[in-house]
This record gives sequence, C-alpha cells and structure tokens, in this order.
Amino acid sequence: MSVTHISPGDIERTNMEIIAEGLARMGVVLSEKNEAVVKRVIHATADFDFARTLDFTPSAVERGIAALHRGAAIITDTNMIMAGLSRPSMEKLDCAAHSYMADEDVAHMAKERGVTRAAVSMERAAAEHPGGIFVIGNAPTALLRLEELIQDGLRPALVIGVPVGFVNVVESKERLLETALACGVPAILSMGRKGGSTVAAAICNALLYTAAGTLDPARRGWG
Amino acid sequence: MSVTHISPGDIERTNMEIIAEGLARMGVVLSEKNEAVVKRVIHATADFDFARTLDFTPSAVERGIAALHRGAAIITDTNMIMAGLSRPSMEKLDCAAHSYMADEDVAHMAKERGVTRAAVSMERAAAEHPGGIFVIGNAPTALLRLEELIQDGLRPALVIGVPVGFVNVVESKERLLETALACGVPAILSMGRKGGSTVAAAICNALLYTAAGTLDPARRGWG
Repeated sequence: MSVTHISPGDIERTNMEIIAEGLARMGVVLSEKNEAVVKRVIHATADFDFARTLDFTPSAVERGIAALHRGAAIITDTNMIMAGLSRPSMEKLDCAAHSYMADEDVAHMAKERGVTRAAVSMERAAAEHPGGIFVIGNAPTALLRLEELIQDGLRPALVIGVPVGFVNVVESKERLLETALACGVPAILSMGRKGGSTVAAAICNALLYTAAGTLDPARRGWG
Repeated sequence: MSVTHISPGDIERTNMEIIAEGLARMGVVLSEKNEAVVKRVIHATADFDFARTLDFTPSAVERGIAALHRGAAIITDTNMIMAGLSRPSMEKLDCAAHSYMADEDVAHMAKERGVTRAAVSMERAAAEHPGGIFVIGNAPTALLRLEELIQDGLRPALVIGVPVGFVNVVESKERLLETALACGVPAILSMGRKGGSTVAAAICNALLYTAAGTLDPARRGWG
C-alpha cells in the first residue's frame, strides 16, 4: 500500500498524539482553555518553542470564542492570514475577515505621513470595526499602532499579536501585552521574535473550530 | 518620534543585517547562489534552524530562475502560499499560480480512491503543467505523489518541498531529494519536520524577486 493511502483524519490524529507526547517530554502542562490553541500552532509549525512563548491574557480564549459567537469581524494584516482562515467555520459563525493593507488610500496616507501602511491600516480597521478581532501576523508597526489606539480607548474583542522578525518585533509584543493587561483587552501573543501568518492563522482557526463547534443556533438568532 | 515612523526600506535592511550577523555567529557560510533564499526564509520565520536544514540540489536556484524567466506556471498545495506570492514580480514575469486542492472533482476522486486531495491535486497539476514549478508547503502526501510521478517520468522545472508536521513529512522530503538527485530534477527542500506556507512563499518569492530583477525584456519576447 502506498504511503499516500492515509486518511486525512488519521494523519491529524497521529500529528496531535505526537504533539501531546512532545509536550509531555518537555514537562509542559497546558491549561485546558489554551491547549487547543498551542497544539494547533505546533501542528502548523512543527516548532515546540511556541509551547513556551505563547502568552494569553486572562480569559483571552473564552472571550475570543464569545466574540466569534457574536459574529465579530476579523481584521488581518496579511492576505496570507485571510487565505488560511477556516471558511466553513466562518460561514457557520457568520464572521467576515477584512484587511486594509492593500487599499490605495491607505498606501497614499502612509506615504504622506511617513508611516507604514500597516500602521494606517490599523487606524482604518479601528474606525470600521472597533470591536473586532485583530490578527497581526507580520507587521510590528501594526501592533505598535494598535497598542496606541488601545491606550486612546479602543477596545477590540481580542488581539492575536504574532508578528515575526528582528526589528521592533519583541518590543511590539511586550508593549501590547502590558497595555492589554492594564486595559483589560484580551490578547494572545507569541513572545520573542517568532510568529508569522501561519501562526496567526493557526491561532485564529483553533478559536474558529471551537466556536463553530459550540455555536448554539437557537441563542444566536435572538442573542 | 513614534516607533511606527520607520520606513519599510529601513526595516528590511536592518532585518537583513541582523540575519547576516546571526549566520556569521553560527559559522554558516552560504553559497552566493542560495544566500537570498535562505535569508528570505529566516526573515519570514525568525528561525535560524533553516540555515542548516534547507537543502538545494545542484543549480536548483539558477534553474528555478530560468523557469520563471520563461513564465513557468507555479503550482501550490495551499491558498496561503498563493496569497503570499509577490504579485508585482509574477506580473512582470507573466507567471500564473494555480492550486487544484479545492477543486470539486479532485475532492470527489480523492474520496473514491481513498487517497488525499493533495495527492490527486498533484496528478492534475502534472497533467496541466508538467514543466511547472511545484511548491508544496503543507501536505507530505502531495510531495510523495509528486515523487512517484517523477519516477514515472515527470520533469518539473523545480520542486520546492517544505511540508510541515510529524506524519510522513521527514520521509517525504528524503524520498523526494533522493529521486530528484537521481533524475536531475531541481529541488529546494527543508529537511526535517519544519516548513509551511510562509517558508514555501518565502523561497518562491526570493526566486521571483531575483527573476523579475534580472528579466531581459528584449530576450523574453523572442526567447
């Protein structure tokens, strides 16, 4: 029998078993609430570092799921994240994803003010969807601008902050975490340099799968 | 001055300087031909492991760039990779990207035969674009099926093989490498468990940037 004759369900189960064994060998015990998110990120990266670097503010997972149950908008800073989100779950939850990075007027304003498009796109998103789920997988300047907007009163439903790289990245996550804790904004962050679009999509999908699986259609219509 | 007031060009340069310093500290010396690819992957992941795990068959980079100069089709196994490819470079090179993973008849045939959609999508891609650039960032079964097709005579312009995970992943890359070397098929692979859509897109973009920057329009029209 060819090795290509394996059902996707079996591959998924075996992957998850190997991840659980790896975590046990590391001595990492995950809280029940955060477990699905951490495992989905390791599944998407094969990088166990994330078991130690993912950081959750209190109730971030529950509040993210509650926001998805309400049909909150999902804002991303890359088209890759948008392409990686679970469409069936989003349709079931009636959630839409948006990115303002490629908008011409965002590019124009960024050039005029000498800031990044990512920073301007956060301002646009904050104006359009102030209670949305903000998913930042690439640009630290998006996370830094979002932190300033939270200081100024913005209250997103959840911030998933996992930019990647070497310039401003560590600092952007530390600032966001501090401000999120101070302002009571739920946040899930990958502390340190690592992150990226696959990590961002994996975190968001873990929440989407749980939210879609626990949606009560009777409550949704009158909620 | 706010930290969001940094030009994207400055961020890019500083990122690349830090990556060069990191590689120097590791004692890694990259060949001039492969350097841009390795640095772009580390830039996209902040993970220096890739400096040791990326493997290139002889002339893989040059042959990939030559294929892009000819306008070769790019086949991907995820929509995330497609979303991450440099559109301006592809337009300049007149290259199009395709993915057959979401096709309904691919899903139907996979179910009927008890194999993965990824495996069937490779058969479809091999029939439509036998001389294409195959970019596998997710499914080891896609890479395993592609290896069988190469054994049977398929000669893609380049295979970028960077699936991620714990089941069949290491084995799929080792098999592909062996067969690629035996059959003279150019390949770029991330040996081991790590990889993913961001890694796949980063490798492809490194080639796209170089190819678009070295395109001779006078030759292209009559090439």
